Amino acid sequence: MEYFEDSAEASLKCQNLSLTRKSDKRGRFSKVSLNLYVALVHYPVVNKNGDVITSAVTNLDLHDIARAAKTYGIKSFYVVTPLVDQKALVEKIVSHWTEGLGARYNPKRREALELIRIEETLQKVVEDIRKSCSVSPKTVVTSAKNGFRRLSYGNFRGLLKNGKPYLLVLGTAWGLSDSFIAGADYVLAPVKGPADYNHLSVRSAAAIIIDRLMADETC
Amino acid sequence: MEYFEDSAEASLKCQNLSLTRKSDKRGRFSKVSLNLYVALVHYPVVNKNGDVITSAVTNLDLHDIARAAKTYGIKSFYVVTPLVDQKALVEKIVSHWTEGLGARYNPKRREALELIRIEETLQKVVEDIRKSCSVSPKTVVTSAKNGFRRLSYGNFRGLLKNGKPYLLVLGTAWGLSDSFIAGADYVLAPVKGPADYNHLSVRSAAAIIIDRLMADETC
Repeated sequence: MEYFEDSAEASLKCQNLSLTRKSDKRGRFSKVSLNLYVALVHYPVVNKNGDVITSAVTNLDLHDIARAAKTYGIKSFYVVTPLVDQKALVEKIVSHWTEGLGARYNPKRREALELIRIEETLQKVVEDIRKSCSVSPKTVVTSAKNGFRRLSYGNFRGLLKNGKPYLLVLGTAWGLSDSFIAGADYVLAPVKGPADYNHLSVRSAAAIIIDRLMADETC
Repeated sequence: MEYFEDSAEASLKCQNLSLTRKSDKRGRFSKVSLNLYVALVHYPVVNKNGDVITSAVTNLDLHDIARAAKTYGIKSFYVVTPLVDQKALVEKIVSHWTEGLGARYNPKRREALELIRIEETLQKVVEDIRKSCSVSPKTVVTSAKNGFRRLSYGNFRGLLKNGKPYLLVLGTAWGLSDSFIAGADYVLAPVKGPADYNHLSVRSAAAIIIDRLMADETC
């Protein structure tokens, strides 16, 4: 697998794309806007028994991941659900904070939730990014399961340097389905601590992964 | 400020304390249990106008931070509130997941929520840790505000190597009150991304900080 691809194909049309990138000695980026997008997927995911289901949208997932996305310069945060009523719920939450009373009560929350886009499928997310970047994003999925060849955080940071768009895909419930994972370009290394316990919330996992990829401080 | 204190005073009684510590070349710990405790404080914190208030307990704060604490080998996760009804609420939530139906439905959640302790004040937290470690923990508070001399993540990792207990103190609402911060031993560097936006949820900030301090992978 070649992580450091030729960047010549990278589209200059991609929003806010800067080709003058500075990175510190550990490969971290400083004060540079990169083309990382995040998607939170509610189908196809699995429940605790391994059955493929459509999960319900959780309000705090939207807030927490949007705030982390805004903090680290993520381009857009896509909420993916095929259910009409769930899409309507997300639209209602987002409009409350971006246009309604919430926007006046807490303008900082507005800035974060403005990053949210709602799509029915991951394919539609990919198409939406391709429209603004003129190139489809590579998809990088997360899974706490073993059994996949993994992209390390350092190599993902290296990939981001090539100027092309990347889409980090997070699963809700007990995680993305195996067939969905198999269709991705990369499977990211799981977030692990020293303890033998890998049951972080998707909100916590999102925050940690985005920090590992995008923080401009040494950690 | 001397971060690398003499470890001779460190108590051998501290639970699970191991004096044979291994760390990688970046100072990260591998497979070693350290004496880091976490407290989530609901008083004294400030609201958006800067008034000192007592905040309400948020259910998902308990779950998310307990799960991150379990993942990274945190010793205990203290929920601090002086309000009798809020203490009762936390006790009810914790007992549901550690002894009630929740424990049978999701044993992994039980493992995490078993780390939760409830105390009225930070002073009582400090006393509780002193009882098990025979030495009071140093307190490290978090604040997104500017104006404090900051402990870096690298230096905090260095401190943890000395074998003594440390208590990471997180504020809810709009953060810990200034007088509370002034009484702490250290103020940790804020979590910042490349964007000029520092409004992470306390759940996300907790996950990122604990990962930066305790992850055994290079990131």
